Amino acid sequence: MNDSSQLKSEILEQVIEAWNQLQAQQPLVHCITNSVAANYVANILLAAGASPAMIDNPFEAESFAKISGAISINTGTPTTEQAQAMKITAQTCSNHNKPWVLDPVGYGTILAWRSQTVDELVKFNPTVIRGNASEISTLAGNQVQSKGVDSTLNSADVYLQANVLLQQTDCVAISGESDFIVAKDIPAIIQINGGSFLQPKLTATGCALGALIAAYCAVSKPSIAAIAAHIHFAIAGKLAFEKATSVGSFGVSFLDEIYTMNAEKLKNYADIEIIQ
Amino acid sequence: MNDSSQLKSEILEQVIEAWNQLQAQQPLVHCITNSVAANYVANILLAAGASPAMIDNPFEAESFAKISGAISINTGTPTTEQAQAMKITAQTCSNHNKPWVLDPVGYGTILAWRSQTVDELVKFNPTVIRGNASEISTLAGNQVQSKGVDSTLNSADVYLQANVLLQQTDCVAISGESDFIVAKDIPAIIQINGGSFLQPKLTATGCALGALIAAYCAVSKPSIAAIAAHIHFAIAGKLAFEKATSVGSFGVSFLDEIYTMNAEKLKNYADIEIIQ
Amino acid sequence: MNDSSQLKSEILEQVIEAWNQLQAQQPLVHCITNSVAANYVANILLAAGASPAMIDNPFEAESFAKISGAISINTGTPTTEQAQAMKITAQTCSNHNKPWVLDPVGYGTILAWRSQTVDELVKFNPTVIRGNASEISTLAGNQVQSKGVDSTLNSADVYLQANVLLQQTDCVAISGESDFIVAKDIPAIIQINGGSFLQPKLTATGCALGALIAAYCAVSKPSIAAIAAHIHFAIAGKLAFEKATSVGSFGVSFLDEIYTMNAEKLKNYADIEIIQ
Repeated sequence: MNDSSQLKSEILEQVIEAWNQLQAQQPLVHCITNSVAANYVANILLAAGASPAMIDNPFEAESFAKISGAISINTGTPTTEQAQAMKITAQTCSNHNKPWVLDPVGYGTILAWRSQTVDELVKFNPTVIRGNASEISTLAGNQVQSKGVDSTLNSADVYLQANVLLQQTDCVAISGESDFIVAKDIPAIIQINGGSFLQPKLTATGCALGALIAAYCAVSKPSIAAIAAHIHFAIAGKLAFEKATSVGSFGVSFLDEIYTMNAEKLKNYADIEIIQ
Repeated sequence: MNDSSQLKSEILEQVIEAWNQLQAQQPLVHCITNSVAANYVANILLAAGASPAMIDNPFEAESFAKISGAISINTGTPTTEQAQAMKITAQTCSNHNKPWVLDPVGYGTILAWRSQTVDELVKFNPTVIRGNASEISTLAGNQVQSKGVDSTLNSADVYLQANVLLQQTDCVAISGESDFIVAKDIPAIIQINGGSFLQPKLTATGCALGALIAAYCAVSKPSIAAIAAHIHFAIAGKLAFEKATSVGSFGVSFLDEIYTMNAEKLKNYADIEIIQ
Repeated sequence: MNDSSQLKSEILEQVIEAWNQLQAQQPLVHCITNSVAANYVANILLAAGASPAMIDNPFEAESFAKISGAISINTGTPTTEQAQAMKITAQTCSNHNKPWVLDPVGYGTILAWRSQTVDELVKFNPTVIRGNASEISTLAGNQVQSKGVDSTLNSADVYLQANVLLQQTDCVAISGESDFIVAKDIPAIIQINGGSFLQPKLTATGCALGALIAAYCAVSKPSIAAIAAHIHFAIAGKLAFEKATSVGSFGVSFLDEIYTMNAEKLKNYADIEIIQ
């Protein structure tokens, strides 16, 4: 077995253990997310085995972050109160060593207010930063032309830029046709294949993925959490598409597949590549 | 026929009549609810026969409560403006004798701000208070350790505690594996069985149940409204699970079954017990 | 071929071209919408071919409107910040000649605050105004008794009243059992038949229709945009009902049919009438 397949097999073992722990512990995952995604994110987390809660007022942010297993902060549709809650939450996570995921939806020059909020949040060192290629590239300091909240770049063209963000975070995850994970504690870039072209046709799949990374962060280390969440999604997407080829029924099957995931499926269908 | 089976049969008759009235009157049910539940609650109410509306700003709260058939107030994700709207609405209901349901999501010491809001709302005497075992137990004055917005207690262990809340309300409904209804005008506790273990795997089913109680309150007395809503849910959950065993397709079937409910199904499948 | 069938055939050709353009251009459609509809609207727009974004804070309203292909403003559940965002957005659209659709949900005397907001928005000359019969009739200056956010009037009784609104807008669309389009540049009223009685049983279908009109406005002229969106919905509703007759599964099929629309189906199933 060469180094790559050794690493691959070690990672897969840890992913399966993370999934087992998620089922066993059902951690409380606190999400500050957008109004488009809230319902869907909660359903994905429940199906995956976590116990979700969405509390987004500033008055309860500190006390709730303290009792959560992990936190997901997503800047999709911020309000003034929600932005305050995000900052208090990030600070509380930082002070109390709680794992948290930052999903900087819409980060870029057009959406200046949220981007400023994101800049402040990044200072509290998110455990994982996840986003699409445009968001990650912009956050890494590059000039990117955006189209609303969807990416104009390919994940494969951007992952090398993510390294610079490891000064602020333990792990960067970039979603796209293939997903890429860059982590401090893994001496390679992990590429995850799978899913279906219908996934980006369902709103809030990226937001739900960010929340699922947080769920896995409550039961495993950041790099494995990010990889596990992406594999969980990639396999569910692939299997759902075998059952449903239009977007409404695909959405239903996708949730079914998130729920019926198991160690066997993770072992058989995980499709990862090691980029040395 | 003994007293219990006499009472059971009287209740079931009234539940069927309540369902008939809901179809005939299609009452306007006004919901101040959380961002996770809003879409789902509206769809459940429409499927059940009601006409839902979600107005949650303080500026229209008074005038809208006045024209509503019944109101549901749910503290899942309150904002400052929404909390103001809740108080104005509860006061308007109290002044104008409108039935309203309080669903104190997350009530407990961790979430102090909403809990304070709930304490103020309770003073306006909700027609029905419904919640999970943790929320009802805490509201009844007991010390409970909570896990986010999900219950850490069993409904069966808590229903006796609910009696003290009848000073503030006509009826208390506790959802769980079995549901329990405690009402001023029924000389027994009503236990409702059914549903599916997948129901708590769908987010916002509790919130939707609270709104459905409100819908039935617009067409029947509080105790029967609470019982009817729980039976409607329990039967739909049981029948949906016969068709779909993973959570995505179960959610679709559940909505189908809420919509295709009828007097025959209520008669055949209602599973209630009288606890004297 | 008489004048009516000539006009009908010209319109249908332009509708098919609009659908083709929507697929080709995938325009960024910016929606300020309500909390009930947000997720569903995004999914409908994605399925139809557009690229949706929901940005509803006032701080990013101007810069985001400028880069959008078209904008949909819906007053279902306004907050103070959202109402500010609506006004800034409408003004930006007016200044920069961006097509925008106004969906004045709940317009009427009971809901005074939003109705005042709508009155201010109308001054910025929406490209299309769409609503149910009650909303359009009230906006046209008639006294209407409303029932929450659902219509108490028939679309067929109201379309003549819509003419007066052409002083403020290029096109008025009234949804109901049949839909009616009144436009400055079409010398007739266009009636669109189809759909299913289950459509109003799904919440936010009207809101999604308004957003879809905006999507088509990004790629065609207002009258054709309104007609195309209504035909897209009417056909999807008709075909979905052939596959699913209860509301949960109908909702899934409806989204499937929105996504699998094509020129062939538009040609075969479009059911429009010309009212001279």
